[in-house]
Amino acid sequence: MSLNSFGHLFRVTTWGESHGPALGATVDGCPPGTRVDAEMLQRWLDKRKPGQSRHTTQRREPDTVEILSGLYEGRTTGTPIQLMIRNVDQRSKDYSNIEDTFRPGHADITYFQKYGLRDPRGGGRSSARETAARVAAGGVARAVLADLAPGLEILGYMVQMGPHVIDRARLDLAEIARNPFWVPDAQAAVDWAEILDQTRKNGDSLGAVIEVVARGAPAGLGAPVYAKLDTDLAAAMMSINAVKGVEIGAGMGAAALTGTQNADEIEMGEDGPRYRSNQAGGILGGISTGQDIVVRFAVKPTSSINTPRASVTRKGAATEVVTKGRHDPCVGIRAVPVGEAMMACVLLDHLLLHRAQTGRTGPVGQIGD
Amino acid sequence: MSLNSFGHLFRVTTWGESHGPALGATVDGCPPGTRVDAEMLQRWLDKRKPGQSRHTTQRREPDTVEILSGLYEGRTTGTPIQLMIRNVDQRSKDYSNIEDTFRPGHADITYFQKYGLRDPRGGGRSSARETAARVAAGGVARAVLADLAPGLEILGYMVQMGPHVIDRARLDLAEIARNPFWVPDAQAAVDWAEILDQTRKNGDSLGAVIEVVARGAPAGLGAPVYAKLDTDLAAAMMSINAVKGVEIGAGMGAAALTGTQNADEIEMGEDGPRYRSNQAGGILGGISTGQDIVVRFAVKPTSSINTPRASVTRKGAATEVVTKGRHDPCVGIRAVPVGEAMMACVLLDHLLLHRAQTGRTGPVGQIGD
Amino acid sequence: MSLNSFGHLFRVTTWGESHGPALGATVDGCPPGTRVDAEMLQRWLDKRKPGQSRHTTQRREPDTVEILSGLYEGRTTGTPIQLMIRNVDQRSKDYSNIEDTFRPGHADITYFQKYGLRDPRGGGRSSARETAARVAAGGVARAVLADLAPGLEILGYMVQMGPHVIDRARLDLAEIARNPFWVPDAQAAVDWAEILDQTRKNGDSLGAVIEVVARGAPAGLGAPVYAKLDTDLAAAMMSINAVKGVEIGAGMGAAALTGTQNADEIEMGEDGPRYRSNQAGGILGGISTGQDIVVRFAVKPTSSINTPRASVTRKGAATEVVTKGRHDPCVGIRAVPVGEAMMACVLLDHLLLHRAQTGRTGPVGQIGD
Amino acid sequence: MSLNSFGHLFRVTTWGESHGPALGATVDGCPPGTRVDAEMLQRWLDKRKPGQSRHTTQRREPDTVEILSGLYEGRTTGTPIQLMIRNVDQRSKDYSNIEDTFRPGHADITYFQKYGLRDPRGGGRSSARETAARVAAGGVARAVLADLAPGLEILGYMVQMGPHVIDRARLDLAEIARNPFWVPDAQAAVDWAEILDQTRKNGDSLGAVIEVVARGAPAGLGAPVYAKLDTDLAAAMMSINAVKGVEIGAGMGAAALTGTQNADEIEMGEDGPRYRSNQAGGILGGISTGQDIVVRFAVKPTSSINTPRASVTRKGAATEVVTKGRHDPCVGIRAVPVGEAMMACVLLDHLLLHRAQTGRTGPVGQIGD
Repeated sequence: MSLNSFGHLFRVTTWGESHGPALGATVDGCPPGTRVDAEMLQRWLDKRKPGQSRHTTQRREPDTVEILSGLYEGRTTGTPIQLMIRNVDQRSKDYSNIEDTFRPGHADITYFQKYGLRDPRGGGRSSARETAARVAAGGVARAVLADLAPGLEILGYMVQMGPHVIDRARLDLAEIARNPFWVPDAQAAVDWAEILDQTRKNGDSLGAVIEVVARGAPAGLGAPVYAKLDTDLAAAMMSINAVKGVEIGAGMGAAALTGTQNADEIEMGEDGPRYRSNQAGGILGGISTGQDIVVRFAVKPTSSINTPRASVTRKGAATEVVTKGRHDPCVGIRAVPVGEAMMACVLLDHLLLHRAQTGRTGPVGQIGD
Repeated sequence: MSLNSFGHLFRVTTWGESHGPALGATVDGCPPGTRVDAEMLQRWLDKRKPGQSRHTTQRREPDTVEILSGLYEGRTTGTPIQLMIRNVDQRSKDYSNIEDTFRPGHADITYFQKYGLRDPRGGGRSSARETAARVAAGGVARAVLADLAPGLEILGYMVQMGPHVIDRARLDLAEIARNPFWVPDAQAAVDWAEILDQTRKNGDSLGAVIEVVARGAPAGLGAPVYAKLDTDLAAAMMSINAVKGVEIGAGMGAAALTGTQNADEIEMGEDGPRYRSNQAGGILGGISTGQDIVVRFAVKPTSSINTPRASVTRKGAATEVVTKGRHDPCVGIRAVPVGEAMMACVLLDHLLLHRAQTGRTGPVGQIGD
Repeated sequence: MSLNSFGHLFRVTTWGESHGPALGATVDGCPPGTRVDAEMLQRWLDKRKPGQSRHTTQRREPDTVEILSGLYEGRTTGTPIQLMIRNVDQRSKDYSNIEDTFRPGHADITYFQKYGLRDPRGGGRSSARETAARVAAGGVARAVLADLAPGLEILGYMVQMGPHVIDRARLDLAEIARNPFWVPDAQAAVDWAEILDQTRKNGDSLGAVIEVVARGAPAGLGAPVYAKLDTDLAAAMMSINAVKGVEIGAGMGAAALTGTQNADEIEMGEDGPRYRSNQAGGILGGISTGQDIVVRFAVKPTSSINTPRASVTRKGAATEVVTKGRHDPCVGIRAVPVGEAMMACVLLDHLLLHRAQTGRTGPVGQIGD
Repeated sequence: MSLNSFGHLFRVTTWGESHGPALGATVDGCPPGTRVDAEMLQRWLDKRKPGQSRHTTQRREPDTVEILSGLYEGRTTGTPIQLMIRNVDQRSKDYSNIEDTFRPGHADITYFQKYGLRDPRGGGRSSARETAARVAAGGVARAVLADLAPGLEILGYMVQMGPHVIDRARLDLAEIARNPFWVPDAQAAVDWAEILDQTRKNGDSLGAVIEVVARGAPAGLGAPVYAKLDTDLAAAMMSINAVKGVEIGAGMGAAALTGTQNADEIEMGEDGPRYRSNQAGGILGGISTGQDIVVRFAVKPTSSINTPRASVTRKGAATEVVTKGRHDPCVGIRAVPVGEAMMACVLLDHLLLHRAQTGRTGPVGQIGD
């Protein structure tokens, strides 16, 4: 049991605050012999790092990862991998007045109620900077997955910003890397840029929905009850800052389907069963089917806004809070690589669990022999 | 790490299959000295048990719980509480033909792929009968919560069946116990009865959305990162059979809000901070605020339907499957007491975690002193 | 985290009290497809059960195990295996006077201090009857080990009773099953029978040292730091009632050796490295060498003796305690099958951990290629 | 589950190799509000650090600890505390020839067999340098214990070096800090210096027995079965490098006692029960009695010796190994502060577990009211 860890066998523990000297992740249980280096991890961190477009916070953090342990001659040794990221642009200042006021929508108030104190510097442990450590750990998971599940690909993208949902008819995965929203819809990218500029000018912010898909995951990962693959995915995504909902496949919309619509029909493909639809999101009874694993999560709008909101001080006096400073007008944008990293970690963890119990990295029961 | 357990300190391990001799839950880590007896638990089991109206399966299971350990003179001793429920109406028959066919929408196929074999008797470990054990364990959690958090109340109800959403303007919690749908809307209860009868006659089934609310939970439960209260609630609800989505507060809808709308404003109430809205669902930064904790989850429509669906056999031959037998036309109905039980277990678990770390069962930091 | 569980992946949770209706073990994480039946487990339980000779307690418990879940057609399914043993000869009586007195050397006093109450019926959860559940679980572990590590053999025996140590020059493993002490020394068996009769007549009891050896365990099990194989063996043995010391290989005696004596020299055997001695007890740096794994543990003399000992009542009054009733004059005898069961569980658990991380059930690095 | 972590609630994860850039410990689950600073931790690290007398390795490591997270204004925040120690004197050199030879008594061979590779630089993760991280974490535990269990004192010392056992009649705790052996016997300190000098000149090494005592621990810590206080102490001590045996109270010697000798008689003291002896080592039935908690462990002689020992190469060729370099002739000396640190961590962990379950930091059941 650990308050700052996730994963059963591929176990990630993160540490560090927004404005301390550094933050990082300890990755335990990694298989030995996989090629890993800092550049491989940096690629994913660069996707998440702030200040890359006018649509994200202007805090300038290079988010350079250092690997302090767990490698020898460029390969994982099977011992803990310590990934450290120094905080560079933390702008030290006097936080004493913030310390006594609670920003609505923020963890300030609950953090204080829980511990009797808080670290006011940038949200302390509640800061979204913590997710940099997840992205670094996710990079290690991806490297190991490349060895153990060679066909597997993980891709995340935005499908909604504020009330604006993409047009799935225009979905083009090649677009994702071409715009600052990671949105697979070229028109949406144009429209959203304008909308978000306006939102920021209004001193407001927007929420988002992220979809993360894993292609080529083997059937058989997961378990029927509390170690369901979707249980761990739901926990992984809900643990990301500002997430308020998680869906698998048809998600909340499954409630509105009939059983006839919902039951994905099965037929034989060339190398195993094939499904005519994917309402299940690639998971049946907690276990992967071999289809695309589809997870979506909603990120609430950034709580740090330039519009005054009523609040109270520590002593209980009424006050108004306006959060100035460098903030993301849609924090969901930068949640895309975080969602991918969590997917990678959860899938590798379940691959190891499945291998422990059955000796395989794919299905034990073969259909169509 | 255990595939069939949940909870950090109040730890529940369930066991048993749909058609074996019995199923049950081992409850470990329970505080000593709480009054518990079988009748207290039976009350909740009776809410979940099948065959109570024409809208649920006609399988006749009394679901009588026996307490085999962990009590002395009517009080918990602090040692494991074994809760056993015998299967009575399992109708033994020849399952050999089912064993070779996979029902679309069911765990049959993934179970076989994972383990190389399966228990075809009623779904084995993937059966929703497993949830009886959770309800029994939830009864123990409720008893302890009555001691440790006296004002706490947990209430679940349906808010949607198929595409039919309740009218929140008519919401009346007193209605919940008066209809077989646990729906807080008298008109919906009437309408839904007719709709569900028709659905069953059509050989089809419907999904549902359940809302579970905890009133009077203290502020301060949870943690900022992976042991967030909402992380554990998401995992708990997603681990229930057929659940495809979980929401906290505004949930997926949070994506469509602006920051101004989403940030629940704070003012001082008589005995602490009070919020003008509850988009957060009672949880900020993973820690409870003291407001109502609001969780919703979507249950997909029952996969066992009387309409033929295309499938394959174990040898890969094309086939069609019709699932006859005693099935719930809307399995979401019986998920209501299960969701309540999971809420109770998660809250007690976090109350114990909070007490371990801080020595309190309520907030450490006091506002307004 | 669970107070009543052990094992990382092959996870055993025991429940039940000495004088309740039943006790048992939930075995989670078991690989699927292994042949298991009640007779296989009963064989080991019969070795532990009371009343088999005049040297153990005369309580008559058949210790018949029932398997309530986790099997289908005689094979493990990969889901939890519930093993239940009913208490039969619990002799209900009035425990009210015992409840207020604390027997020296017993858990009575600490149990009361911890929980504020206790189950006085036969020691409640602190009773050695709990070990029956371990032996049943160990039977499952042995069955799986027979599949995964075919050459592995586990054998336990007494090497000391009171101050009387066996003569290793006379060690003959074939003797173990021929005497009620599980001692591999025919002469010791004769001598000890007389000594123990005399001890019992004196109203006294004796301690013991048990040695458990695993032959044919593959090299590579364990890990360098906190998941050392010897760490988990030490915890497993120390968790058995009345154990006060655990040794690996040379054990406490290693302190008196020089480095030259202690470093087991290595040479090449026919199928891998071979060691000229085994001071290490088959474990170097927490990882198995492929040699015999040798563990010893000391069991203190039974605290229930017929000799008066000074004590206090719950109210603090001075008193004297004599424990009448059916007790083992040397409880170490019946710890032999328990130690074997713990060894089996720990080795299987580490085999699964090793398989998870490396994909192998034996060494990854090969010497002598 | 984590291979490099220990503790249930006060959870320590260590990372880093002997010759990498740094090593450290992530401390999770620490109560908030305790005063901690680097100097407090350094005090304990200085006790363990090498090169303090001619009797320990001449490697010069300042072992300066940096606190990277988890504190705000000098107090613990309740979030993870990252403790980092840079390696300074790692003397980079060519390890390629060592990589292919296995030092008898070392983890080299099993490390290679487990992972298929190894980090030859100073033993990699198997190096005793890992224990510096434990000592730093133990310093945090001591600081919290000073708040939660004010009377508690933890003291470790050597009681045996090679075959030379201290004379308990001369035991004087004040002597411990006055000699480089941490031995509470002034005469032994003089004798051992000479013996160890001679041993080093002979190219040999000696084992040791360390005793660690906790005074003033409250009654009620622990649990009856797998979370016994002695189970966790045994695991904690056995996880230290080179430890081959662990004893509680009378330890292995308990086997030679009669029940009459072993049952510590109880009488009433001024503020609770008092025992006339302490064969139990302060733990009955897995739960602390309030007496001194007494643990001993045996450390084998250093395997790195200047005497040639037969071994094999990776290719299986016979060879001889002499380990030159800077090694401790009795590595047990530096295990003293490590044993103290493990005692501190285990006691705090159990204090938090007890507080979680019962709401108290001391006994619930009061004797003598």
